[in-house]
Amino acid sequence: MSLWGGRFSQPSDEQLRQLNDSIDFDQALYGEDIKGSIVYARALATAGVISADEAETIVGGLREVLREFESDTFAFSAADEDIHTAVERRLIELVGAVGGKLHTGRSRNDQVATDFRLWCRKAADELTAALRQLQAALLNLAERHQETLMPGYTHLQPAQPITAAHWLLSFFWMLERDLHRIAAAKARMAECPLGSGAIAGTPFPLDRDAIARALGFAAASQNSLDAVSDRDFVADLLYANALCAIHLSRLAEDILLFSNPAFGFITLDDRYSTGSSLMPQKRNADPLELMRGKTGTVIGALTGFLVTLKGLPSGYNKDLQEDKEALFGALETMHRLLPVITATISSLKLNAAAMQAALSSDLLATDLADYLVRKGMPFRQAHHVVGEAVRLAAEAELNLPDLPLPRLRQLSPLFAEDVAAVFDFGNSVRRRSAPGGTAPQALRLQIAQARAILDEYAEDCV
Amino acid sequence: MSLWGGRFSQPSDEQLRQLNDSIDFDQALYGEDIKGSIVYARALATAGVISADEAETIVGGLREVLREFESDTFAFSAADEDIHTAVERRLIELVGAVGGKLHTGRSRNDQVATDFRLWCRKAADELTAALRQLQAALLNLAERHQETLMPGYTHLQPAQPITAAHWLLSFFWMLERDLHRIAAAKARMAECPLGSGAIAGTPFPLDRDAIARALGFAAASQNSLDAVSDRDFVADLLYANALCAIHLSRLAEDILLFSNPAFGFITLDDRYSTGSSLMPQKRNADPLELMRGKTGTVIGALTGFLVTLKGLPSGYNKDLQEDKEALFGALETMHRLLPVITATISSLKLNAAAMQAALSSDLLATDLADYLVRKGMPFRQAHHVVGEAVRLAAEAELNLPDLPLPRLRQLSPLFAEDVAAVFDFGNSVRRRSAPGGTAPQALRLQIAQARAILDEYAEDCV
Amino acid sequence: MSLWGGRFSQPSDEQLRQLNDSIDFDQALYGEDIKGSIVYARALATAGVISADEAETIVGGLREVLREFESDTFAFSAADEDIHTAVERRLIELVGAVGGKLHTGRSRNDQVATDFRLWCRKAADELTAALRQLQAALLNLAERHQETLMPGYTHLQPAQPITAAHWLLSFFWMLERDLHRIAAAKARMAECPLGSGAIAGTPFPLDRDAIARALGFAAASQNSLDAVSDRDFVADLLYANALCAIHLSRLAEDILLFSNPAFGFITLDDRYSTGSSLMPQKRNADPLELMRGKTGTVIGALTGFLVTLKGLPSGYNKDLQEDKEALFGALETMHRLLPVITATISSLKLNAAAMQAALSSDLLATDLADYLVRKGMPFRQAHHVVGEAVRLAAEAELNLPDLPLPRLRQLSPLFAEDVAAVFDFGNSVRRRSAPGGTAPQALRLQIAQARAILDEYAEDCV
Amino acid sequence: MSLWGGRFSQPSDEQLRQLNDSIDFDQALYGEDIKGSIVYARALATAGVISADEAETIVGGLREVLREFESDTFAFSAADEDIHTAVERRLIELVGAVGGKLHTGRSRNDQVATDFRLWCRKAADELTAALRQLQAALLNLAERHQETLMPGYTHLQPAQPITAAHWLLSFFWMLERDLHRIAAAKARMAECPLGSGAIAGTPFPLDRDAIARALGFAAASQNSLDAVSDRDFVADLLYANALCAIHLSRLAEDILLFSNPAFGFITLDDRYSTGSSLMPQKRNADPLELMRGKTGTVIGALTGFLVTLKGLPSGYNKDLQEDKEALFGALETMHRLLPVITATISSLKLNAAAMQAALSSDLLATDLADYLVRKGMPFRQAHHVVGEAVRLAAEAELNLPDLPLPRLRQLSPLFAEDVAAVFDFGNSVRRRSAPGGTAPQALRLQIAQARAILDEYAEDCV
Repeated sequence: MSLWGGRFSQPSDEQLRQLNDSIDFDQALYGEDIKGSIVYARALATAGVISADEAETIVGGLREVLREFESDTFAFSAADEDIHTAVERRLIELVGAVGGKLHTGRSRNDQVATDFRLWCRKAADELTAALRQLQAALLNLAERHQETLMPGYTHLQPAQPITAAHWLLSFFWMLERDLHRIAAAKARMAECPLGSGAIAGTPFPLDRDAIARALGFAAASQNSLDAVSDRDFVADLLYANALCAIHLSRLAEDILLFSNPAFGFITLDDRYSTGSSLMPQKRNADPLELMRGKTGTVIGALTGFLVTLKGLPSGYNKDLQEDKEALFGALETMHRLLPVITATISSLKLNAAAMQAALSSDLLATDLADYLVRKGMPFRQAHHVVGEAVRLAAEAELNLPDLPLPRLRQLSPLFAEDVAAVFDFGNSVRRRSAPGGTAPQALRLQIAQARAILDEYAEDCV
Repeated sequence: MSLWGGRFSQPSDEQLRQLNDSIDFDQALYGEDIKGSIVYARALATAGVISADEAETIVGGLREVLREFESDTFAFSAADEDIHTAVERRLIELVGAVGGKLHTGRSRNDQVATDFRLWCRKAADELTAALRQLQAALLNLAERHQETLMPGYTHLQPAQPITAAHWLLSFFWMLERDLHRIAAAKARMAECPLGSGAIAGTPFPLDRDAIARALGFAAASQNSLDAVSDRDFVADLLYANALCAIHLSRLAEDILLFSNPAFGFITLDDRYSTGSSLMPQKRNADPLELMRGKTGTVIGALTGFLVTLKGLPSGYNKDLQEDKEALFGALETMHRLLPVITATISSLKLNAAAMQAALSSDLLATDLADYLVRKGMPFRQAHHVVGEAVRLAAEAELNLPDLPLPRLRQLSPLFAEDVAAVFDFGNSVRRRSAPGGTAPQALRLQIAQARAILDEYAEDCV
Repeated sequence: MSLWGGRFSQPSDEQLRQLNDSIDFDQALYGEDIKGSIVYARALATAGVISADEAETIVGGLREVLREFESDTFAFSAADEDIHTAVERRLIELVGAVGGKLHTGRSRNDQVATDFRLWCRKAADELTAALRQLQAALLNLAERHQETLMPGYTHLQPAQPITAAHWLLSFFWMLERDLHRIAAAKARMAECPLGSGAIAGTPFPLDRDAIARALGFAAASQNSLDAVSDRDFVADLLYANALCAIHLSRLAEDILLFSNPAFGFITLDDRYSTGSSLMPQKRNADPLELMRGKTGTVIGALTGFLVTLKGLPSGYNKDLQEDKEALFGALETMHRLLPVITATISSLKLNAAAMQAALSSDLLATDLADYLVRKGMPFRQAHHVVGEAVRLAAEAELNLPDLPLPRLRQLSPLFAEDVAAVFDFGNSVRRRSAPGGTAPQALRLQIAQARAILDEYAEDCV
Repeated sequence: MSLWGGRFSQPSDEQLRQLNDSIDFDQALYGEDIKGSIVYARALATAGVISADEAETIVGGLREVLREFESDTFAFSAADEDIHTAVERRLIELVGAVGGKLHTGRSRNDQVATDFRLWCRKAADELTAALRQLQAALLNLAERHQETLMPGYTHLQPAQPITAAHWLLSFFWMLERDLHRIAAAKARMAECPLGSGAIAGTPFPLDRDAIARALGFAAASQNSLDAVSDRDFVADLLYANALCAIHLSRLAEDILLFSNPAFGFITLDDRYSTGSSLMPQKRNADPLELMRGKTGTVIGALTGFLVTLKGLPSGYNKDLQEDKEALFGALETMHRLLPVITATISSLKLNAAAMQAALSSDLLATDLADYLVRKGMPFRQAHHVVGEAVRLAAEAELNLPDLPLPRLRQLSPLFAEDVAAVFDFGNSVRRRSAPGGTAPQALRLQIAQARAILDEYAEDCV
């Protein structure tokens, strides 16, 4: 039974039905659909459109349908084209013709827009929880590596010594921005479309603000035409997902590099490594490769949905049905990846010795320039002097600290015996103690900030 | 049983396994995997790596595995991480340890690259067949509407009279380019990676050209490192799909417009229309909206896969595993859409009267300028004169043919009584008889070309 | 003069320089670069790294450089690879070697991250202003058309009568979400990277919070490694732009349709229409086609930049240099489009008579079902009854109101003489008076909300 | 002077004009526009539409316009909205009103479609030439490194020993596919739209096939409506560009990794490296980072243009004007990158010693399994045995070759004294001698194939 067959003299083609039907994926919305219908039935009664008794009969029937879904005993009919049809069909089977009063003044257009927003608000919370766990794993690992030195890279070339904790925490803050983005998206989707009808609004005196509040929205939407065709909230979540995946692809790239034996900074736990069908020695970091690879898929989901939206005329268009598969797919990808990434981080081993060994003395070239600066030379000149020292050392096949002082003094008389103290990686790190820097002192502040954020979240969840 | 556990002291984490395993989707490759293995077993024997008896035992076992798949009796094991593992595991169960000789010198890297190319070559043929059917539907409808006049639009504004056949055939040629693109992609993927091993080639004296020929490829691939990581053939199919979907989105947009009552040019068959849950009068052209909307999804699949490929280092990377879901999804979308679009075209009704009624006399303004050209006025000047005539007519709220001749002669003395003959839509169309034009004479040529293409394809398929 | 040549024994290749140099586009940042440097010079003095006199000499020089830019007398040198190099080079020319102290502890990495954030914050404000103007144009036009009736469409098929004001205001709210998105992006980018150095932080005791406040940021960034490589703020603006363009592509599509003579709802002003080189009668709505077409370009800029970000390792990578051309291009596109769209809206003419004439009686089918609902019939049944009435009318080639009452009563005895009152488009619209609906009463509320938003913005700008 | 003002009572708004005008970028088509017009003028004469004298006057004028462009003396007028307008305006200035006959039966729609195809065919050739040079650089370097051993990587983990030549040549074949893709695109765009008019074809008896041949096309297009709105050829080039950029992003990623000191395999020439404004020791591989980063921009150009195309109705729509900026931008990016990448390859130094030093004995684990296979053990079992040997060695902190034979024999009695010969990287490589493998013997074949391709191209160019 479709909801709309009256005016048609021939049934739909079977292949079209299969193409058209969304029940395969939109059944995920059953809880939101029933919740919305319960609130709607009562709103109809409050408005005097149906009686209070009718409303309670409908609500009772809807609760029974919900029980069937939750106990996995709901039986779909071949004619259930979408979850909304399925629920209403079953409701009428259970409570009789009065069930047919539920859809009064409502359209699938405002119904699906409401259901999907409810679902997306829940999804935002679930994604938040998964990301908080990854933040916690990063923070826990960072706390243990505040003194572990490693090279920091720019342009993938060794740049300056940093601490491993500083590197790990950089991802904490990327995720923090992702969480802000998700929260902002959730706030923007807090307008309730129910009561917008198909396009023009409802002709029944519904209290739309009360409906909105009962469903946990902040307010009723302001324009019925916009409300039924707005899918910004889907795009917002897809975008937040995509940028989050990009951040994780950076984490993945780093770990893939650092677990290559040429670096040897990281050893993944056996549980998060895989082997080769041909080469018996292989230990591959598959979770990270999948993270990096699936970033493409998640970006593709965003792009695809934006393309779908482009150039559509006003009002609901069936094209919008692409919203669910795009978002469901992207979120499922993230929810399969995130626990594995979190567990990979929690179980990996940082090899402090290898990290330390990778520090070469040219990473202190900036410190050497700063040495001259402290003696009064303008930085630009100091940079040039040290650049020449680097070149001289390279030509002489010496490390920078091994250039004899007289040779340095030919470049600048400011060089003196105390230059030796520059060549200490720990000193270099400790000097960068302004907030946001890599020094242990600044790290403690950073860790405290991060910990406070997680603690506050944990409290909010109680 | 994974194929690679020897060196690991702990099994994989279960969530990683679920993330990592590709068996849910790559089982679609079972036929290609077994076909490739049969050819490979024999090649090992030819090269003297295994005995002829061993090869035949393996081939027999593989055929039994194939029978199990085709009779739907193949039992997957929880440890079958991909189709290659599943087939080899079952083979060994069936024929014993000798089955373990099949993978000699082979890696999943060259194996999956070969399997997927075989699958893609088949997919190219299936997509071709579906598109040929749509071409046939368009051509059949066009043949019936060679005399049906309608407005041709540019900038979505009425431009000049054309025939409905001409409009329909424009899509035939777009699809023809899609088919060329698919054929070119198929030709480019005709290089066989088998015998490339994991990355470095095979240490066994396999006759790679013979393997290639036995599997229907044109040649063996030239570089083992490239061969195992090349996924151009996947991108090529995704791109061909995307551009084809774009063409169909144009067809969809036209039909959506033309079936709006403001145009009223097209009535969809009831079987290919749907209704509204709220508004009893609605007849929506859902198949076309879905076609247009899913174009976004298909473009997203292409974009997503290109993103996945970007910046990967040499050699097989697990990221490449995204290739299958992207292509399977895009092709399934097309294969669900195409028969519905074809049937929609075959069953729709063109309303010739409404089309004719939409022809307004300003569509002949170009013909009016050509009239002046034929009398010797340079076209640029004629265009300007007729532009002024159009403006005068609009200001006087007259149709162009109703402007009195004296008024026209004020604009140019070249106007004469014979100008009346210009205002005939049929004449306008008939004049455009050069090849490619909309005149019936040119249409007959166009239809003959199109019919010949379909006939040739039908013969090739026999 | 490059800033970094000391260690190199050969100069850069000329083609590489041209590829590498960003001066062609990043000179747009001159104001932000100089502003950032002024604050930085003083912060160096406050921290005791340079003297107060040195700071003022540098500040004076920077102000002179700014004057040169603003009076268009700044002379670029061939060796100015980017705006930062150009400003520092000129500063040193003006004030001598002391200018070389400005870059102490600073890297182009934190410098460009700061400059570009400052620029983006300004760009967010400029985009906001342009969108507010378009909102105002929509609202002004809507206020004049509160009583103008037109068909509302779903699936591009006529659905229900609405007012033209309701249609116009639907875009007001889409833009309102865009503005929230831009504001949220601006808030997220309010962290100041200056003092992050190249990657590890600064070894000088700078008061980073004071620097942040002096530049109008809310706080200093928390992690130097993240701060120099974060380009989320660019992606956020590109995304906000892309979704805004999609909304405008919807407006464009509607106007393109409605200005087709088959609809005839809208006449564009001559100043915002163009003609054809061949067809003298053409009036094309080019601004709307360009809006729709350039939406693709803007989405492409977002996608492209996300691709660039994907898979990069930690720390600044030169890939990030793509950020500026992507964002500059997208914003320039929007800033060229928006005034034209605003002017097109302000100057177009709604043809109320054509809109009214397009209302056909089946748009009242929902109202007819509601009539039965008010008499006690469950909606689902009423929908079916009216669907049959629609079919009967179509078969009899009658309009719905012309079906004889006895015929209707065969479908349901609830039909009575008072059914005639249903067939009034004005009544249909007036009934939809709940907030968000199309009725004049609800519209007044909607308009008041919209006006209040614009008034508040105007006050904030004072 | 616009070409179309006659019917308008008000001129275009200035901001719209700036938005609408394409002269800033489409002036790149001046040569193609004039060439097409010369052929068209003569075709008009052949068809008797204009006289032979008129044609020659027009051709003479066009040649003069061409001379002005080529000597950079062409003076644009503020009213030249596009190159077609500019050329016709100047022609009429030069030859008088007869120049106004040139546009007879022609529309900018078929004119621009023809011009841009001509331009794209030339662009395909130029891109081909640039890619051939990069292939040559790769081949030249490969020829010098046929004996240089290095680790081959899969999953970014060391997999098996390969030769550096084999690695370099893998990119040769990727580019070869790109070149096939470009050639196929060029073949598909060999249909000439000229004579299609605005949409309906030409009413003048032009010999369209002769026009096509005169302009170097293979044939005239078959359907005028399709011909004026087809931009597949632009999408094809954008796609070919995007996939080529992806290949080059792989080359870039490899070189960026290999020039990190942890690998140390590659030293870029000073001319193709850059430094840091802060850190005096840095040597960054900017050309490769730019290559990788700009791959995003090029993919974005493809995606953006596909979005523009999606959902457009039939006939020319102004949206299509986005075609030129998208393609010009993408091609310019490639043409700025390619010579730098080619020069970077030609000038870089492979450090054979570092490559050799990175070979560790577990890269021979597959060879060890093959050793057991040759003694009769099924591969699957051999893989497991060697996996255990790898684990034992790791636990004992020994290299694989240092495991005592008795220990190996506990795993399998097939191990014997001759196992020592397995542990030779050169042997491993030499064994992979089947075509496509990394052995010197197979490499010689591969190099000969590659050289033959380049030689054939060089001959074709003569």
